[in-house]
Amino acid sequence: MTLLVVGSVALDSVYTPFGETADALGGSAVYFAVAGALLHPVQVVGVVGKDYPVAQLEGLGARRIDWSGVERADGESFRWKGKYSYDLQSRETLETRLGVFAQFRPRLLPGHESAKFIFLGNIDPELQLGVLDQVTQPRLVVCDTMNYWIQGKREALLGLLKRVDILMVNDAEARELSGDWNIHRAGRWILERGPSRVVIKQGEYGALLMERNRTFYAPAFPLEEVFDPTGAGDAFAGGFMGYVARTGDLSSDNLRRAMVYGATMGSFAVAHFGIRGFDGVGLGDVEARVAAFHDLTHVAAAEPLQ
Amino acid sequence: MTLLVVGSVALDSVYTPFGETADALGGSAVYFAVAGALLHPVQVVGVVGKDYPVAQLEGLGARRIDWSGVERADGESFRWKGKYSYDLQSRETLETRLGVFAQFRPRLLPGHESAKFIFLGNIDPELQLGVLDQVTQPRLVVCDTMNYWIQGKREALLGLLKRVDILMVNDAEARELSGDWNIHRAGRWILERGPSRVVIKQGEYGALLMERNRTFYAPAFPLEEVFDPTGAGDAFAGGFMGYVARTGDLSSDNLRRAMVYGATMGSFAVAHFGIRGFDGVGLGDVEARVAAFHDLTHVAAAEPLQ
Repeated sequence: MTLLVVGSVALDSVYTPFGETADALGGSAVYFAVAGALLHPVQVVGVVGKDYPVAQLEGLGARRIDWSGVERADGESFRWKGKYSYDLQSRETLETRLGVFAQFRPRLLPGHESAKFIFLGNIDPELQLGVLDQVTQPRLVVCDTMNYWIQGKREALLGLLKRVDILMVNDAEARELSGDWNIHRAGRWILERGPSRVVIKQGEYGALLMERNRTFYAPAFPLEEVFDPTGAGDAFAGGFMGYVARTGDLSSDNLRRAMVYGATMGSFAVAHFGIRGFDGVGLGDVEARVAAFHDLTHVAAAEPLQ
Repeated sequence: MTLLVVGSVALDSVYTPFGETADALGGSAVYFAVAGALLHPVQVVGVVGKDYPVAQLEGLGARRIDWSGVERADGESFRWKGKYSYDLQSRETLETRLGVFAQFRPRLLPGHESAKFIFLGNIDPELQLGVLDQVTQPRLVVCDTMNYWIQGKREALLGLLKRVDILMVNDAEARELSGDWNIHRAGRWILERGPSRVVIKQGEYGALLMERNRTFYAPAFPLEEVFDPTGAGDAFAGGFMGYVARTGDLSSDNLRRAMVYGATMGSFAVAHFGIRGFDGVGLGDVEARVAAFHDLTHVAAAEPLQ
């Protein structure tokens, strides 16, 4: 069953205390695809300029990522330049050049319209709605957003929420969208506006899966070496959606498992610069880390106290 | 087996966005005792001035908390005044009046010296060492500390670490003590200086139990209403130690269970001002929340992917 991602395909220049990259492959759709394809084939819809190193893109997980939906437009590719603080807790955007991304109008290819699992990366909510108008019977629609759209396209975003199954955002976005600093009330606010579930990512602390009557907490994998947090959230989404698409099971229990696969992919993403954290990673490595995750929260059964 | 806590017995004046208290019962030993006594009898060693409402203290969990080790000294009781930000994420100390606490020299009563489970609340590490000199064969010594001692009494603190089994601190303290912003490296740094385990509390995100070869993550209980974070860490310690003292089991698996009881007590503490979050709470309430905690991280078993 087709897993489709619509999002940015960018060139990132990132400064961290440990080194820097210049014009490295990045963007939400790229991180999503590289992580998700470890579990399930991924179809990518996006846009790049004539300057994009498409051959590099096509070299990534060649057999499981279909890049044919990435349009090549006249103009420059989307570039993002950012700098992280010494402790990686915050980052500053030094430059954003939208290039061809400014005129991006996602066009699904023949075959895409029947996609069952759809991830709407962080783009204008009106474009996200436009994608949903092109698909016929999705089984699961997950979307991301950011402060820029929360502030500038609030009505479109609220309209979108009525048509998605899961909103997947970070804690600052959930707080800003709901206007509530308590993350559990913020999650409930979102659940009252359409989605049946909300995933709230909390960086180094992990991520929450909130359902109407049940909340799940997936901690972040304990890492002594974190090099570059860029793309961790999109890799999380790729792992989550890849697992759901592979198993085809939308039950609460299975979405919890998907959270663990998401957290696993996030942990690979931050372990190196850009997408290099996935170099050489195979399904066996993924399964080993998933197993380690289980021990992280495992509590052996005991008799209740009386 | 005796559970002993040495720490502050104070009068707190706390301002939160939801209300305020003036001269309410507080201090690390009080929060610890109120939480711990839900699971196991607690002996308290501390000091108060002549102005302390001792009758109120003695009314708390009367049958399970022994306050006879709380000395009544000439002078004023320890008072703390603090104000929380609108989102409870940070607080400002408005006033600290040490009073009789400035001259506190913990003196254990006959019988205390054989205590098996000892919690050294956040006081001068030289005094914490002085307590250890008075006990004969403890089975588990857990200590807390704070930035003031990390900066001002570093050598004494490092000496203390060699004699305690578990250091229980918050993440900012672990970072400051180790000089490392990565919390997992910070934990390892501490483990290399004496304690066989370290517990790192992360406020609304939960707490980590780090052992030499295993890490456990206990999330915080999801609460839509948090009124006053004061004392949550000490209530956590009380739940943790109360469970260990009650079960007498120092295995890794049992300490993980103790973490869940700690997190449970922390969740009661923040649900109201001061120690009022424990009003009317009994063992049945504790067990119900512990059970709810298990669902928070429960992932149903599934076949590995191949």
